[in-house]
Amino acid sequence: MPNLYVALTHYPVVDKRGDIIAAAITNLDLHDISRVVKTYGVKTFYVVTPLVDQQKLVRKIISHWTFGYGAEYNPTRRSALEQIKLKDTIADVGREIAETDGVYPKLTVTSARRHPSNVGYREYRQILKSDEPHLLVFGTAWGLAESFIAEANYILKPISGRTDYNHLSVRCAAGIILDRLLGTE
Amino acid sequence: MPNLYVALTHYPVVDKRGDIIAAAITNLDLHDISRVVKTYGVKTFYVVTPLVDQQKLVRKIISHWTFGYGAEYNPTRRSALEQIKLKDTIADVGREIAETDGVYPKLTVTSARRHPSNVGYREYRQILKSDEPHLLVFGTAWGLAESFIAEANYILKPISGRTDYNHLSVRCAAGIILDRLLGTE
Repeated sequence: MPNLYVALTHYPVVDKRGDIIAAAITNLDLHDISRVVKTYGVKTFYVVTPLVDQQKLVRKIISHWTFGYGAEYNPTRRSALEQIKLKDTIADVGREIAETDGVYPKLTVTSARRHPSNVGYREYRQILKSDEPHLLVFGTAWGLAESFIAEANYILKPISGRTDYNHLSVRCAAGIILDRLLGTE
Repeated sequence: MPNLYVALTHYPVVDKRGDIIAAAITNLDLHDISRVVKTYGVKTFYVVTPLVDQQKLVRKIISHWTFGYGAEYNPTRRSALEQIKLKDTIADVGREIAETDGVYPKLTVTSARRHPSNVGYREYRQILKSDEPHLLVFGTAWGLAESFIAEANYILKPISGRTDYNHLSVRCAAGIILDRLLGTE
């Protein structure tokens, strides 16, 4: 199993005008991406938001499905959502991984825009074969802020379909990217 | 481009007990899967439900984003959702494709359960290279009814990750499957 962690971050991301914002939580992002993460054997799914009210919402969603009636009604939701760890910042995620693994993770970001230094999926599959911890970050809203992308060790290539349309939901993008990196036919 | 159509059907599917039901519409299924379909150049995205009130809901969601303020606010949603065609039954979908293409499509179904006659992704990628029309069907709720699966020409292999967990959302499953069939690195 690769030493891979996944984070979904709500800051710093951009809105449709390109301004940096802290985005709201989307319930189904948590459900869908935690299921993807569990399917592909990712170590931990971090949900990142600095907003206190949004953190409360994340805790409420998780506890609804991991305790009491919700957990009993749908155990596959429970086992997916209970992998989530909530953090204020990506820096906090990095510190937690460094405490566990003894070294800071390499930071890899995803973006629907091309960058000159994009790394391809086959190449990154090879890179993941090392023992080093890697943190793969997905942004919500209109995507990760360029200032954050500039700090990354690797920028994954945008997903290419068969058209110029590049507006997948972050839920579907996370599924496709983890399948490209970790899937087995 | 392959001659591929995609349908998301709400009947006949099963609930958590395995009973056949007509499932309710999930708003984000329409948004996410229409974006996937547009990314990968699928010809038409059919949404199938026999329930009249649910058909009204689908029309409402589509018209919100394809006319007036919604269309202006988010043109990428509009261009994805306007590909949707609403039908009562999969048989109606088959008839419409037969009228356009002069021949009924081959029916391919997806399921999270293994079947003795499963076809793999590489093999089905080859099959899609023919000119024949193919209709790829995704089920909502707990998946397509076995009685429906039994009628298909092809049953795609379940998505394999790196664990035994096989409970992806239909949104993520559609993204991963279309990427496996039509993606380019």
